[in-house]
Amino acid sequence: MNYGIIAKVIGSLLIFEAIMFAPAMLVGLLYDETSAIVFLGVMLLTLTVGLVLQKISGSSKSIRAKEALIIVAGGWLAVSFFGALPFYFSGSIPSMMDAFFETMSGLTTTGATILEEIESLDRGILFWRSFTHWLGGMGILVLTLAVLPALGVGGFQIFKAETPGPVADKLAPKMKHTATILYTAYLGITLLETVLLMFGGLSLYEALVHTFGTVGTGGFSTLNASIGGYHSAYVQWVIAIFMVASGINFSLYYALYRNRLRDIYQNEELRFYLLIIGTATLLIFFNLQWEYHGSVFTTLRHAFFQVASITTTTGYATVDYEVWPQFSQSILFFLMFVGGCAGSTGGSIKVIRLLVLVKLIKREIMRILHPRAVVPVRIHHRMLEPDVIASVTSFYILYLLIMAVGTMLLSLEGLDLTSAFSAVAATLGNIGPGFGFVGPAQNYAAFSMPAKGLMSLFMLMGRLELFTVFILITPDFWKEQA
Amino acid sequence: MNYGIIAKVIGSLLIFEAIMFAPAMLVGLLYDETSAIVFLGVMLLTLTVGLVLQKISGSSKSIRAKEALIIVAGGWLAVSFFGALPFYFSGSIPSMMDAFFETMSGLTTTGATILEEIESLDRGILFWRSFTHWLGGMGILVLTLAVLPALGVGGFQIFKAETPGPVADKLAPKMKHTATILYTAYLGITLLETVLLMFGGLSLYEALVHTFGTVGTGGFSTLNASIGGYHSAYVQWVIAIFMVASGINFSLYYALYRNRLRDIYQNEELRFYLLIIGTATLLIFFNLQWEYHGSVFTTLRHAFFQVASITTTTGYATVDYEVWPQFSQSILFFLMFVGGCAGSTGGSIKVIRLLVLVKLIKREIMRILHPRAVVPVRIHHRMLEPDVIASVTSFYILYLLIMAVGTMLLSLEGLDLTSAFSAVAATLGNIGPGFGFVGPAQNYAAFSMPAKGLMSLFMLMGRLELFTVFILITPDFWKEQA
Repeated sequence: MNYGIIAKVIGSLLIFEAIMFAPAMLVGLLYDETSAIVFLGVMLLTLTVGLVLQKISGSSKSIRAKEALIIVAGGWLAVSFFGALPFYFSGSIPSMMDAFFETMSGLTTTGATILEEIESLDRGILFWRSFTHWLGGMGILVLTLAVLPALGVGGFQIFKAETPGPVADKLAPKMKHTATILYTAYLGITLLETVLLMFGGLSLYEALVHTFGTVGTGGFSTLNASIGGYHSAYVQWVIAIFMVASGINFSLYYALYRNRLRDIYQNEELRFYLLIIGTATLLIFFNLQWEYHGSVFTTLRHAFFQVASITTTTGYATVDYEVWPQFSQSILFFLMFVGGCAGSTGGSIKVIRLLVLVKLIKREIMRILHPRAVVPVRIHHRMLEPDVIASVTSFYILYLLIMAVGTMLLSLEGLDLTSAFSAVAATLGNIGPGFGFVGPAQNYAAFSMPAKGLMSLFMLMGRLELFTVFILITPDFWKEQA
Repeated sequence: MNYGIIAKVIGSLLIFEAIMFAPAMLVGLLYDETSAIVFLGVMLLTLTVGLVLQKISGSSKSIRAKEALIIVAGGWLAVSFFGALPFYFSGSIPSMMDAFFETMSGLTTTGATILEEIESLDRGILFWRSFTHWLGGMGILVLTLAVLPALGVGGFQIFKAETPGPVADKLAPKMKHTATILYTAYLGITLLETVLLMFGGLSLYEALVHTFGTVGTGGFSTLNASIGGYHSAYVQWVIAIFMVASGINFSLYYALYRNRLRDIYQNEELRFYLLIIGTATLLIFFNLQWEYHGSVFTTLRHAFFQVASITTTTGYATVDYEVWPQFSQSILFFLMFVGGCAGSTGGSIKVIRLLVLVKLIKREIMRILHPRAVVPVRIHHRMLEPDVIASVTSFYILYLLIMAVGTMLLSLEGLDLTSAFSAVAATLGNIGPGFGFVGPAQNYAAFSMPAKGLMSLFMLMGRLELFTVFILITPDFWKEQA
């Protein structure tokens, strides 16, 4: 194992994070809060640790698959740890485990919170809290579209013609190109939503915080009542639409920019994604009998908002959907397993995988009807390689296995089945709120320390396409130096 | 479509069923009940319809895949319909939909009941009710070990060297051999359990009824309190052990008879099955803190009984497990997705599939660690063909898809998530009791007619390896005459 290179890369990540504390410090300064000093201190500490780690010399510059996997998971852990320090040292979150949970939730764009009372906290602190969503979303875009496919994790290798092959050395130039495209789209959407929210009467601070939560599909708000705290229909519509936009494969925005409209129109994943959101919204709208929330339009807005929020794994809420009829709740429950498109900031299983899974059922039916026929599975007119199919099905199997084991473990906390199951779904799927004990009007404060640690692990696993983390806890990984 | 051959085979099935009414009629006669006359009438009616159907002439004697699929599903429906008539005409179950549900539940060895009060019913009626378990179990053994594999459904093609190839003409002789083996084992176990239960003080009638429910992994009892009504530890242990025995691949009893002990010892599915039951029993035992039910041994017995009952999809109960701690309930909940071994009367996903799914996760990990290596998936030292793997994964995908859609539909009844989800799991997995609204101390009486129809469909789907039924509702099936 080349520990030098691992330390070097994680060191760089920490230096980057140290710089990223600056905006929050600035907010603290502007509002004359003591948080500014905390950020300064943590910034210096993180910078120092980063520089020290960079000094550790490695045997060579090459990164093999195993080291890359450790860098991805370890780096995420390290950044979460240092990112938690401002919460801890400012006294906003008195327990380090809670602060770590909150930061992991932010960086993985989950949005599950242990805070019971948000509005009284320093603005610098709340800015950092939401900024972690934005940073995490940015990180995940490059990870899932470039780094993880090169490592053979995620099963997205074939879906993107632009992604580089498995040779690590050739990664850099192509990755830079992909990254530039994605970050441009990411920044553009961020800017657009911020401006639109300011038109709705939000201050720059409020607009930024909620934009971070939206484009990162995170879900942290500065209000205890989440987006329901803004009674403006305009604000709620803007956020709902940008949630949907942030669940779309970001490379499609590049296609839009290049005017390749056919690529967008013919994108099967996008169509399936919009079909799911549209159908779910209508079903809930009808189930709410048109005027559940006073008027037809208000009911439609709340139905659409909640569907968009859960499907994209954002987790914002305008109403407590647990007062809705069981059918509507049931739909939202299963939307927890949809997630965004591949190459978006959304988590969970993701639409492209569901599309492949549905096609596998179709293939099986054809195989039974025509035993001798070879039926290929195609996405975007391209035949999927057996390896990709295996990757998708393994992901799905492991996802539900973790769901089962996780639910059993959380039930040790005394939670009923729905609460335990949805708590795992909400953290593993990087969503945030679930049902019952972790419903949209609740929070994660009451869990025990081990349960919070476990759910932090679920958030990390879900965010890193399961196998990146899961593989590290298998004996096979540590057995040989291959 | 060769409707002649379909009518002929279904006609034969009905004639067979008419004969099978005889034992129940005899019980009615012995206990001097009016049910005897009802059985005579229904017997004659079923016989007549069977004979008429046989008279319909077919174009040829050959059965193609499509016709076979219709025969299997249609035959099961027809037998359920006529099997429901005694309940309906005797007035025991005043609604025909309820009677059909109860019979489907019996024949699919589910054990879900719409009866709120059982003990007051005629013995002939209750005998028939439990006898459907035994008949259904017998039917399913041959279907899953010989007929369905030949049709490419179920994915068990490769697991059994003895099963015949896909050519329908060559089916008969090999099928007869397999059937003889299975039925001998089935009869032997039936006989043994009946005798052992009679040693425990049960009358021949009671012993038979509960043996039918056990070896068919059904779960209908003559007591409102299920097996909890017998306070004898001996009776409960006998039934628990025979439930486990009935969840084992029946061809292993042939191996036992042939003294091929190595085949049994090395059977990976059996080991995994026993491992699951053992681990779950111990976990619940410890979670119940040793003496939940008075003494250590009583607690162990109840833990083992409930684990065996749910895992094998029988559904008998000695206690209401919903008073147990959440962790224990959670374990039982996920055991609903285990099921028996392939080639047993157990339903649900089945152990062999879970074994394959776990191995697929392992393969994916190896693939990430060694991108160029080809890692085969082996069961019993034999490499699985890609078709078999596809069959297993498709089954799993479809199973959970039906779970999701089913839960949403049942939530229209106003059921909470746990109740709706477990009602689908309990019917699709042919288990019987679930949680909440369909818990072990509850029943299925309060559901609406459409919901009962839907759950009857789930029971049929689950019992016939999903695709046999699912394929009939796809347009592809009816499109071409291939």
